[in-house]
Amino acid sequence: MSHNTFGNLLKFSTWGESHGKAIGCIVDGFPANIPIDLKYIQSKLDLRKPGQSKFTTQRKEKDQVDILSGVFNGKSTGSPISMIIYNEDQRSRDYSNIKNKFRPGHADFTYHVKYKNFDYRGGGRSSARETAMRVAAGALADLYLKKVANKLKITSAVIQIGNEKITSSNWNEGFINKNPFFSPNKSIIKIWEDLILLHRKRGSSLGAIIEVRVKNCPPGIGEPIYQKIDSEISKAIMSINAVKGIEFGTGFNLIDLDGTNASDQISYKNKKIVFDSNHAGGILGGITSGQEIVFRYIVKPTSSVLSEKNTITKSFKNTKIKTIGRHDPCVGIRAVPVGIAMTSFVIADLMLIQKSKLI
Amino acid sequence: MSHNTFGNLLKFSTWGESHGKAIGCIVDGFPANIPIDLKYIQSKLDLRKPGQSKFTTQRKEKDQVDILSGVFNGKSTGSPISMIIYNEDQRSRDYSNIKNKFRPGHADFTYHVKYKNFDYRGGGRSSARETAMRVAAGALADLYLKKVANKLKITSAVIQIGNEKITSSNWNEGFINKNPFFSPNKSIIKIWEDLILLHRKRGSSLGAIIEVRVKNCPPGIGEPIYQKIDSEISKAIMSINAVKGIEFGTGFNLIDLDGTNASDQISYKNKKIVFDSNHAGGILGGITSGQEIVFRYIVKPTSSVLSEKNTITKSFKNTKIKTIGRHDPCVGIRAVPVGIAMTSFVIADLMLIQKSKLI
Amino acid sequence: MSHNTFGNLLKFSTWGESHGKAIGCIVDGFPANIPIDLKYIQSKLDLRKPGQSKFTTQRKEKDQVDILSGVFNGKSTGSPISMIIYNEDQRSRDYSNIKNKFRPGHADFTYHVKYKNFDYRGGGRSSARETAMRVAAGALADLYLKKVANKLKITSAVIQIGNEKITSSNWNEGFINKNPFFSPNKSIIKIWEDLILLHRKRGSSLGAIIEVRVKNCPPGIGEPIYQKIDSEISKAIMSINAVKGIEFGTGFNLIDLDGTNASDQISYKNKKIVFDSNHAGGILGGITSGQEIVFRYIVKPTSSVLSEKNTITKSFKNTKIKTIGRHDPCVGIRAVPVGIAMTSFVIADLMLIQKSKLI
Amino acid sequence: MSHNTFGNLLKFSTWGESHGKAIGCIVDGFPANIPIDLKYIQSKLDLRKPGQSKFTTQRKEKDQVDILSGVFNGKSTGSPISMIIYNEDQRSRDYSNIKNKFRPGHADFTYHVKYKNFDYRGGGRSSARETAMRVAAGALADLYLKKVANKLKITSAVIQIGNEKITSSNWNEGFINKNPFFSPNKSIIKIWEDLILLHRKRGSSLGAIIEVRVKNCPPGIGEPIYQKIDSEISKAIMSINAVKGIEFGTGFNLIDLDGTNASDQISYKNKKIVFDSNHAGGILGGITSGQEIVFRYIVKPTSSVLSEKNTITKSFKNTKIKTIGRHDPCVGIRAVPVGIAMTSFVIADLMLIQKSKLI
Repeated sequence: MSHNTFGNLLKFSTWGESHGKAIGCIVDGFPANIPIDLKYIQSKLDLRKPGQSKFTTQRKEKDQVDILSGVFNGKSTGSPISMIIYNEDQRSRDYSNIKNKFRPGHADFTYHVKYKNFDYRGGGRSSARETAMRVAAGALADLYLKKVANKLKITSAVIQIGNEKITSSNWNEGFINKNPFFSPNKSIIKIWEDLILLHRKRGSSLGAIIEVRVKNCPPGIGEPIYQKIDSEISKAIMSINAVKGIEFGTGFNLIDLDGTNASDQISYKNKKIVFDSNHAGGILGGITSGQEIVFRYIVKPTSSVLSEKNTITKSFKNTKIKTIGRHDPCVGIRAVPVGIAMTSFVIADLMLIQKSKLI
Repeated sequence: MSHNTFGNLLKFSTWGESHGKAIGCIVDGFPANIPIDLKYIQSKLDLRKPGQSKFTTQRKEKDQVDILSGVFNGKSTGSPISMIIYNEDQRSRDYSNIKNKFRPGHADFTYHVKYKNFDYRGGGRSSARETAMRVAAGALADLYLKKVANKLKITSAVIQIGNEKITSSNWNEGFINKNPFFSPNKSIIKIWEDLILLHRKRGSSLGAIIEVRVKNCPPGIGEPIYQKIDSEISKAIMSINAVKGIEFGTGFNLIDLDGTNASDQISYKNKKIVFDSNHAGGILGGITSGQEIVFRYIVKPTSSVLSEKNTITKSFKNTKIKTIGRHDPCVGIRAVPVGIAMTSFVIADLMLIQKSKLI
Repeated sequence: MSHNTFGNLLKFSTWGESHGKAIGCIVDGFPANIPIDLKYIQSKLDLRKPGQSKFTTQRKEKDQVDILSGVFNGKSTGSPISMIIYNEDQRSRDYSNIKNKFRPGHADFTYHVKYKNFDYRGGGRSSARETAMRVAAGALADLYLKKVANKLKITSAVIQIGNEKITSSNWNEGFINKNPFFSPNKSIIKIWEDLILLHRKRGSSLGAIIEVRVKNCPPGIGEPIYQKIDSEISKAIMSINAVKGIEFGTGFNLIDLDGTNASDQISYKNKKIVFDSNHAGGILGGITSGQEIVFRYIVKPTSSVLSEKNTITKSFKNTKIKTIGRHDPCVGIRAVPVGIAMTSFVIADLMLIQKSKLI
Repeated sequence: MSHNTFGNLLKFSTWGESHGKAIGCIVDGFPANIPIDLKYIQSKLDLRKPGQSKFTTQRKEKDQVDILSGVFNGKSTGSPISMIIYNEDQRSRDYSNIKNKFRPGHADFTYHVKYKNFDYRGGGRSSARETAMRVAAGALADLYLKKVANKLKITSAVIQIGNEKITSSNWNEGFINKNPFFSPNKSIIKIWEDLILLHRKRGSSLGAIIEVRVKNCPPGIGEPIYQKIDSEISKAIMSINAVKGIEFGTGFNLIDLDGTNASDQISYKNKKIVFDSNHAGGILGGITSGQEIVFRYIVKPTSSVLSEKNTITKSFKNTKIKTIGRHDPCVGIRAVPVGIAMTSFVIADLMLIQKSKLI
């Protein structure tokens, strides 16, 4: 139990505020002798980096990560790996306008109530900037998984923005990282472009639904009863800023099925165990079955919008607020690499636990 | 980190199999001098108890709980509280028919893969029978909350079974525990009765959607970034058997709103902070805001149905299986008291943490 | 972190009071498919059992352990193993004489201050009776170690009682469990008998120094920096009732050596790595070196003695107390199997962690 | 459970190698609104800093600490506090001479066995350099304790170097930090100077015994059974490099007392609870009694000495080694501020836990 630490046997701990000197993380419990490729980690950070298209925030951050410990001669040593990103674009703003007001939909009010202080400079610790370090930690988890489960592959895409949903479940995986929306599907691009630019112009924002798919996860991963893999993933994903729901496999739509059709029948074909459907999303009793792990989560529309809203001051006076800034019109887009990172980390952590039990 | 333990500072650990001698739990970290009312705990267990109506399993268990430690002269001592329920209805069955087959939709296959064994006697540890001890632990959490946050009230109801959804969000709270479905609303009772009996006759089963509401939870509860209250509740609820999704506040429907309307505006009226909506479900940045906490989860249709299904044997031969037993036609109903218990426990645990920081 | 739980990846949690209905423990994280021999566990408990000779307390307890979960067809299943011992000799005493007085040297006063209550019936939770469950948990750890490190052997003996110390470091291992003092050495028996009977007659008691030796522990066990094996063993041993100090290898006597002689030189002989001394006690940098692990601990004289002592009542009045009861004249003797159990558990736990890192 | 993390509710995690870019730590769980005085933290680091007298290593490090997060407007925010010290004196040495040899008495061999690598540059992670960050974390704990227990005072001194022991238990507290040995007593200074210089000249080194005293620790701190304060302190102190033993109160000398004299009698005088002795070292049943907490630990002689020793290479060839470097002739001296820091942290952590239980 540690408020800013995630994981059980493999752990990462993040620190740093949006407008502080730097952000960073420690990854502990990482096995020794894993080749550490800094370029790979940086490439993952670059996917989340702000300021890359007109569809994300214009804050400029190079997000250049440095490793300060735990790696020697290109390999992990078994000691904690410390990573750091210095904040660059801490634009010296005049905060006097908002420093005593709580932005609706943000954590300003609750941080103030809880900690008797809140960092008005971009939300401080509650900013999505923290998620950069999750991506770095997740990239390390990838490097481990490459070594011990090299067929495992995590893919994620945005499948809905506002009311516009992709129509096919066939993904063009190569395309996902080549478009500014992490769309798995070319045909929706123009539609999403128009939708986002429209909302951006209005000073509004949009929510997104993201799907994650994990192929070739070894079966047997997950520790009942309270470290089931779906529990752990849910905890992980729900900790991402602005996420308000998660579902596995057929998820909430299982309400439309009856028991005769809702469980995945099993058979043995061509020397493989096959399931004739995947309502369970690859998880039975909290343990991976070897089927594809599938889940979806909803990221709410960015709360920072241009229209004026009612709020109160720190001294409980009614007032108005307008959040002028460099915000994402659809923050869900940049959540995609974060969701992948958290998934990778959960799997690596649970695989370590599973390995520990081998006799 | 402990596979069968839930909680951080306040913890419970469960043990026991569906058809073993007994099931039990230890609650550790429970403050001293809290009056312990065994009847209260039993009353909560009675709500989950099987065999109470024709809409749940006909397995007969008194589920009579005994406290073996940690209570002296009617009060908690600060030492671990051990509770036990002896299994009674371990109907001596002939398992030869199914002991080598994996029941589709159950954890038989994954337990076998993971542990190289599975308890064919009712699923062993993976059975929902384990949830009885969560209810007992949650009842202890209630007793703590009565002492430190006596206005806090957790209510939960089934809001949808199969395609039949309740139409009003006004709940008749007194009615919920007086009908076999934990329905908050009289008008749907007949519809659900017919629906369940129909599926029962067919040997099929139904899923359910359950809503939980927490009134008067103190603001400031939840520990960013990785012990946010929504993360902790998600982990808790997703660990319940057959749950496949969870959402907070407006949840997945936030996709239909834009940022201008999706955040809850704040004002100060009659010496109270009020929000003009509750899309956030009472949680901002992972911390309670003082608004009502609201979330929903989906319980899939019971996987044990009468119709014959394809499956494989432990030696990977294709075969068929029919689960004849005493199963719940809608297992979601009995999840209601379990969801309440987990919610109560999460809140109590996070309140203890919050208290620890007071200076 | 759990107050009544010990271990990291392999854990045990104990519960129960000296004069409550029962005592018990859960062992969680125990690998599946380990043969579980209840007789072996019972044989370890029998070594600690009270009432076996005139040199220990006359309280009569069969200490018959039952396994309630986690074992199926004679093997561990991977689920939590729950064990229970019902208390038998809860001699119905008249406590009115002492229920309001704090026994000096016992935890009565501090429990009262901490919990605002204390269990005057034999110390409740603070009684050494709790250590029975450690022995049971340690026996399970032994069964695991037999499977994965079958040459590992933990031996422990009393090496000093009061001023009387054994003179040879050569232990007759077969003799240790065959005498009432866990002495490794026949020649001291008569001396200790006389010493203890003398103190018993006087109504007094004696302290003991116990040594533990672990042969053939695999090298590489222990997790720097804060789960070093010496840290973990120290935490484990210091948690045993009445232990007031621990030292490894040459321990406090290292003060008499200089650096030239205090480190163990290494050489390679007959295809084996050998050290020419063992000042380090088999541990370097918190990791096992493959040498014998050696440590010693001191158990203070039993605080319950017949002579009258000054103390205060719960309402802070000066008074006198005499502890008439069935106490051990040298409680250190019965600590021997407890120390072995804790050592076994620490090693098993750290071996699981080490295994988890294998790639 | 985290290998490089210490603490339960209040935690610190250290990272960094002796000759890497930097060392650092995160402190998590630290309450908000505690004034953070960087100068105070630096002053504590200065006490441990190498190169300050001819009695310690000549390595030059400014050990200048920077806070990167968790502090805003001079106060803690409740978010993780990240601290960093850049290594300066990473003297570019030629390691070819020793890079394939294990230094006896050091962790080179065990790190190599465990991690299949070892950092020959000054021991890497196993270097005592790591303890600088413990001092920084402990200083933060001090700042917390000043707020919540402002009379609590931790003092520590070296009481023996080699065979030379201080003769009085009366400490001149003001003198301790004013002499290079942390001696509590002027009269021994000349003796220790001569002794150390003699061993330094010989290329040898000496061990030390250190005593810690905590005045005015509130009673009721410590969580039985497995987070007793003596267990937690033992774990903490034993994790410090080169420590080989610890004892509380009368410690190993309790073997010389019988039960009639070994327990501290209690009385009530002048409206205070007083104990007529302190054999228990201020702790009963793992909980503070309000008496002074007293413990001692032994730090072995520095293993790096000039005389040639037998050792083996990484490829198991017999060889010789001489550790030429800038080592401490008595590393125990610089352990004093580290032991204080660990003690402060343990107490702060356990006080947070105790606070959490208040109702």
